[in-house]
Amino acid sequence: MATSSSSLWVSDTVTQLECNLDDTTGELLGHVIELLLEVGAVDAWASPIVMKKGRPAHTLHCLFMQDVESKLLEVMFRHTTTLGIRIYCDIPRAKLCRSFQTVQTRYRNNELDGKVQVKVSSFVTGEIISAKPAFDDCQLISKSSGIPIKIVSETALSDFRTTKRLRSDTDKNELGNGVG
Amino acid sequence: MATSSSSLWVSDTVTQLECNLDDTTGELLGHVIELLLEVGAVDAWASPIVMKKGRPAHTLHCLFMQDVESKLLEVMFRHTTTLGIRIYCDIPRAKLCRSFQTVQTRYRNNELDGKVQVKVSSFVTGEIISAKPAFDDCQLISKSSGIPIKIVSETALSDFRTTKRLRSDTDKNELGNGVG
Amino acid sequence: MATSSSSLWVSDTVTQLECNLDDTTGELLGHVIELLLEVGAVDAWASPIVMKKGRPAHTLHCLFMQDVESKLLEVMFRHTTTLGIRIYCDIPRAKLCRSFQTVQTRYRNNELDGKVQVKVSSFVTGEIISAKPAFDDCQLISKSSGIPIKIVSETALSDFRTTKRLRSDTDKNELGNGVG
Amino acid sequence: MATSSSSLWVSDTVTQLECNLDDTTGELLGHVIELLLEVGAVDAWASPIVMKKGRPAHTLHCLFMQDVESKLLEVMFRHTTTLGIRIYCDIPRAKLCRSFQTVQTRYRNNELDGKVQVKVSSFVTGEIISAKPAFDDCQLISKSSGIPIKIVSETALSDFRTTKRLRSDTDKNELGNGVG
Amino acid sequence: MATSSSSLWVSDTVTQLECNLDDTTGELLGHVIELLLEVGAVDAWASPIVMKKGRPAHTLHCLFMQDVESKLLEVMFRHTTTLGIRIYCDIPRAKLCRSFQTVQTRYRNNELDGKVQVKVSSFVTGEIISAKPAFDDCQLISKSSGIPIKIVSETALSDFRTTKRLRSDTDKNELGNGVG
Amino acid sequence: MATSSSSLWVSDTVTQLECNLDDTTGELLGHVIELLLEVGAVDAWASPIVMKKGRPAHTLHCLFMQDVESKLLEVMFRHTTTLGIRIYCDIPRAKLCRSFQTVQTRYRNNELDGKVQVKVSSFVTGEIISAKPAFDDCQLISKSSGIPIKIVSETALSDFRTTKRLRSDTDKNELGNGVG
Repeated sequence: MATSSSSLWVSDTVTQLECNLDDTTGELLGHVIELLLEVGAVDAWASPIVMKKGRPAHTLHCLFMQDVESKLLEVMFRHTTTLGIRIYCDIPRAKLCRSFQTVQTRYRNNELDGKVQVKVSSFVTGEIISAKPAFDDCQLISKSSGIPIKIVSETALSDFRTTKRLRSDTDKNELGNGVG
Repeated sequence: MATSSSSLWVSDTVTQLECNLDDTTGELLGHVIELLLEVGAVDAWASPIVMKKGRPAHTLHCLFMQDVESKLLEVMFRHTTTLGIRIYCDIPRAKLCRSFQTVQTRYRNNELDGKVQVKVSSFVTGEIISAKPAFDDCQLISKSSGIPIKIVSETALSDFRTTKRLRSDTDKNELGNGVG
Repeated sequence: MATSSSSLWVSDTVTQLECNLDDTTGELLGHVIELLLEVGAVDAWASPIVMKKGRPAHTLHCLFMQDVESKLLEVMFRHTTTLGIRIYCDIPRAKLCRSFQTVQTRYRNNELDGKVQVKVSSFVTGEIISAKPAFDDCQLISKSSGIPIKIVSETALSDFRTTKRLRSDTDKNELGNGVG
Repeated sequence: MATSSSSLWVSDTVTQLECNLDDTTGELLGHVIELLLEVGAVDAWASPIVMKKGRPAHTLHCLFMQDVESKLLEVMFRHTTTLGIRIYCDIPRAKLCRSFQTVQTRYRNNELDGKVQVKVSSFVTGEIISAKPAFDDCQLISKSSGIPIKIVSETALSDFRTTKRLRSDTDKNELGNGVG
Repeated sequence: MATSSSSLWVSDTVTQLECNLDDTTGELLGHVIELLLEVGAVDAWASPIVMKKGRPAHTLHCLFMQDVESKLLEVMFRHTTTLGIRIYCDIPRAKLCRSFQTVQTRYRNNELDGKVQVKVSSFVTGEIISAKPAFDDCQLISKSSGIPIKIVSETALSDFRTTKRLRSDTDKNELGNGVG
Repeated sequence: MATSSSSLWVSDTVTQLECNLDDTTGELLGHVIELLLEVGAVDAWASPIVMKKGRPAHTLHCLFMQDVESKLLEVMFRHTTTLGIRIYCDIPRAKLCRSFQTVQTRYRNNELDGKVQVKVSSFVTGEIISAKPAFDDCQLISKSSGIPIKIVSETALSDFRTTKRLRSDTDKNELGNGVG
């Protein structure tokens, strides 16, 4: 397969479900997106479309990896108004390696005691591609402290860099420097 | 195939055409969507996109089942400005079973004499998943009577339930009760 | 003012805030929409746009009635990356009259004991325009029972009609019949 | 007013109605857009939005000039599920002057006998800004002949130019030449 | 393959990359679209979506023909925040034949000396389907002359027709006449 | 006016132009957005809409502050196909105070010699709300070095913080700490 020739990323396969909906309401669609994730979808989303007869509508999309196809199809059939669901099977997917590291921020006045998970993604070679404080952690701290998420996230990222002592000037890996 | 393992729905395959259009006008796009349906497409729709050089544009999508591929491609080539059309072949599709039943509503002052087709969709097991008065019938009644479609549709659905005497309290099938 | 000439609806005024954002992420935008509602906005939403230099972006909109303008502006400044917020002041708004009625559904196995609030909207004349079971109530029942929201909602609406004994054949008000 | 200072265009005022809808279906929205135009709206359209609680939804917009506000509001209240409609009053509008001219195309085998209306828009000074064959005329000819609208339209425009003998090389008005 | 049965168009295959992005900003997305094209993508675009937790986001799409998959994947990984990219391999594509012809317009006061490339697309049979003056050429002339692109383009197209002496009344090919 | 009651931000007024376009192509729309900015617009953008007769179309928006209204209207009339442009006059706008500071990054191998402008926005009280490296500077450095913009930007922001020695632990202003 095409993606196997690279030594930078790993790969797996996913399956995608799609249906067009012009008679399901938006509030129901929002609900179904969450429902699909609860049942085991990797991702679920909607995109705005224009259907026949001038109907502003949406396509509902859902991504999953295995074993939950029947469950997801049943949720889509029961909870939306669709009569037919397209199944894009076995789509190859290129992926970064992920790991999580915890940083201690100064925002301690919350149930996390200021600890934020940082999601580190890297190539197979070990090169760090990006480091991102978990949004949910930053959101929780933001809600308890009133400090905007963007600030909490920037601070956590800065703390992550410092902790890891990734020195930008002595490190050959320019990108790793940047995010580290 | 993955979908064959379920005993709840049937399956077939469809093919999808797609092209990106940044030099076809919106009024032409609306026309082409109707044209594709006339020529035999199962569905046709457009989605808003952002293309290179900051161009707000649209992707045109078209779904069909068999024998009309050449006709649809020719329509898209002749009536839009596309130079290339992507063909996603033989996409499996899970489908509900459909049947139609007629209900007599009290809105008799029109060419349908108040008769509305109700589209009933169900699993292979016979469980009814949804029942929906045909939009075109409700629209015709609405136009002649001035009564909003949502009211006509709700009334027709209520009449359908009553006619079918699907008693919710004695029926084990909770979902069937709901729609029946 | 134009709207005052009708005896069918009431009117008030709202103010709308808007800003274009091409450097705020989507996950932050979703967070800010909820935040604005918590702080007192009547409504908050985002619309997809295409900005200069080919940037897919969003406009953030927020609607409020009084006294919370400063709070909302501060939230938008602090939590997004905007530098300027447009203020559309004192927009007249035509409104239906609203009331709430409770119906007892058969879905009793939940913390609501099957009770669903139905939002009834009507003209000043008393004519009922629509009746809608509260989405949050239906969602709660759906989550505890597994029954789709659309079924719970249809059932609650049917129960509301029966309870109110709005007889469609004897009532002059055709629309009221339909929804009642 | 700002627009009055230019001698190139004329101006009038329009009023705009808007409401956000997360519980009206797409097929109903398409119907309401046509309905608003029938009742007297100058324009009506929908734009995709993201509302609270992750709901993919739409804003319905409607533009009108006078005397039909009550009718339009009543249509929106009765036929959608909105509870409140924003009214942006008396918006100044800059307009081109319009006139219509008929051209005889060679596509005679239809009920128009090949005659196409060309909409000519110009500045107050008389300078022609654009000339556009009526879409509906071109569509009718296209449907009866099978010739794509874009071809019919280009041909009608070419015929319009020739008929008007707007010679591009001798005419000082570069823009007028272009379209004429 | 399905498309091979037609003698009207040629076909090749393309591969499409897709990823959903809720934490990449719009200004970055616009940049990445251009970057992907520079690296060798046939096309690149973004579509607005609604992701989980009410996040207004975008799907990034990229199309390419061969040999550049690794480069494109690396650009998407390094320059956006995605952790996984879907790869829709070997999608058949139906294509028109393209050729370019140069026309001499009267807009000579620019670095093109008024010469505009016209992109002619046709079926395998030789039938011309459309002729379109290159947008970039028209834009360059428009910028130096102040004449709107739509006028420059219409004029170039008219010049193309005249030069080619495709007489509409004597030519059997109705469509070719139209565009020629 | 409402915004004058706050001591946190300044205010001015802007005017907004809008028109709906279903017969202007996307590539032209992208061009016009850039053109409007060149002529003096503060901002210009397009949003996807669904117009009558099922037409996928766009609204073109343009924002400006003074003296350029006639020029912008003329550009919109001449370069698009609109016949009427709505003018939302004198919209109050709340604004942050802006200043620019230069930081020296280690990415020296380019025409900026690694110098990046940082846009600092703050309340009237002096509290810094956000600091953002100029996208264009980061893009230029990214193009010459191959380093992703997100990395260049994060590094420049980090350098800005260090240079300004805004110590987060001793500073009372929590938000200022975060961004400083």
